Amino acid sequence: MVFGFDRATSAERTGDGHWKLDIDAGWNIRSYPNGGYLVASMIRPLMAELDKPDPLTVSAHFLRPTSVGSADLSTEVVKTGRTHTHVQASLVQTTERVRLLAAFGDLDAADGPTLISGEPPELPPPDQCLGRGQLPRFLTSIEITEQIDTRLAPDAPWLATRPAAPSISGWVRLADGRPPDIASLFVFADPFPPAVLALGPAQWVPTVELTVHIRARPTPGWLRVRFATRYLVDGYHEQDGELWDDKGVLVAQSRQLAMLRPRV
Amino acid sequence: MVFGFDRATSAERTGDGHWKLDIDAGWNIRSYPNGGYLVASMIRPLMAELDKPDPLTVSAHFLRPTSVGSADLSTEVVKTGRTHTHVQASLVQTTERVRLLAAFGDLDAADGPTLISGEPPELPPPDQCLGRGQLPRFLTSIEITEQIDTRLAPDAPWLATRPAAPSISGWVRLADGRPPDIASLFVFADPFPPAVLALGPAQWVPTVELTVHIRARPTPGWLRVRFATRYLVDGYHEQDGELWDDKGVLVAQSRQLAMLRPRV
Repeated sequence: MVFGFDRATSAERTGDGHWKLDIDAGWNIRSYPNGGYLVASMIRPLMAELDKPDPLTVSAHFLRPTSVGSADLSTEVVKTGRTHTHVQASLVQTTERVRLLAAFGDLDAADGPTLISGEPPELPPPDQCLGRGQLPRFLTSIEITEQIDTRLAPDAPWLATRPAAPSISGWVRLADGRPPDIASLFVFADPFPPAVLALGPAQWVPTVELTVHIRARPTPGWLRVRFATRYLVDGYHEQDGELWDDKGVLVAQSRQLAMLRPRV
Repeated sequence: MVFGFDRATSAERTGDGHWKLDIDAGWNIRSYPNGGYLVASMIRPLMAELDKPDPLTVSAHFLRPTSVGSADLSTEVVKTGRTHTHVQASLVQTTERVRLLAAFGDLDAADGPTLISGEPPELPPPDQCLGRGQLPRFLTSIEITEQIDTRLAPDAPWLATRPAAPSISGWVRLADGRPPDIASLFVFADPFPPAVLALGPAQWVPTVELTVHIRARPTPGWLRVRFATRYLVDGYHEQDGELWDDKGVLVAQSRQLAMLRPRV
């Protein structure tokens, strides 16, 4: 069986550092492909190609909306080092749509002290959280929500009767049973639904820049995620995300700068 | 009077999108220029040149150590839009040392909802915090600490008698009285001393990638800052920073991925 994520992020090598991508309609948010899915599509070919396997940090700038369909991926190895390889990548559909910088390394070779003071969110078991059937229709009508089995904590702010802090937590996994790996973490790191949608659904939330740090290889099973926005100022806001695997290990952190705009 | 920061970040235009920089020894951390200072040096010429004044988000990859002395700054406008202009910049000293992606916009033109749930750290007044004379010598012997007047909260983790959470807060300003502006925020966003130094001073903390979001123009006066690391795993760690101005307005957020290594 070929899982949906693998099919949607497959790439055909067309030359040295160049690939042809096929952006899949299944990962859209209202006719625009999700940013995390685009980053996953750009990073996955590099993971197979580079001398270092793990994309430790990726910063993507969203220049213009990307369309479903064919796209060219152009990459440049900026520096190859003993510990890290830095790469630049561009997604092009006639014009450039996304540009990113990434540093690859090898998580298995990391060697140094460990001290952890954060922890995953406290959540009821997945079957006691809110699944598709219990979420507002403006959320479940988004294409990408069919790919991601999402179980939100019962205190999801959309369900509050008055404005709540824009923070959400819950369980996520790919709906077709594909286990999480590093490439798929990028999809979970730029989640539907943005926490700021708690302020009102009739909004459009374009991402200016998304940075993801990959911190560990996830084990199979559910991921626990928490997303929060603390500073929404004149529409601009950060969204910070933390992702843990089924064993409670932090596997990724994400931060994006985005805008909250009236729907157009 | 020409302030030290302005002299140390001045640039000579040598062509379209090209500048000559002079990396100043005063902003070193043990013979290597501070990463935030390098980013400030690369961004300041662009702030004067581009059609949008404010670097809203900057992600810098540190490829190789930079040296004091002459450097070339090469920039490329990736996309000019109505709201944002995206730029790439490289600092070169024979080989490329730093590459960054930045999105410029206009904070004064931002228009959208505001909802703030974070707040600045509670701090005693600056004269009741720890200044140079009260900090350990391994901190005050670093060159850049002469440029930045730093007053740390009395609970600074270096002063704890047993290992404490790697988090610090305090007041900062440029020592020669130059008021803070957006360009100088990059220096305060990659601070000496890294919070993880609380785990032991005999360490070297190279930054892999630093992202700074500029959220507001600071008013004159002290800045309040808080830096924290929650996930140190096998030496890799994030350091998150928040910077507020004298009126309690959040002016910047920063996050870096760095390594904690035995001193070499």
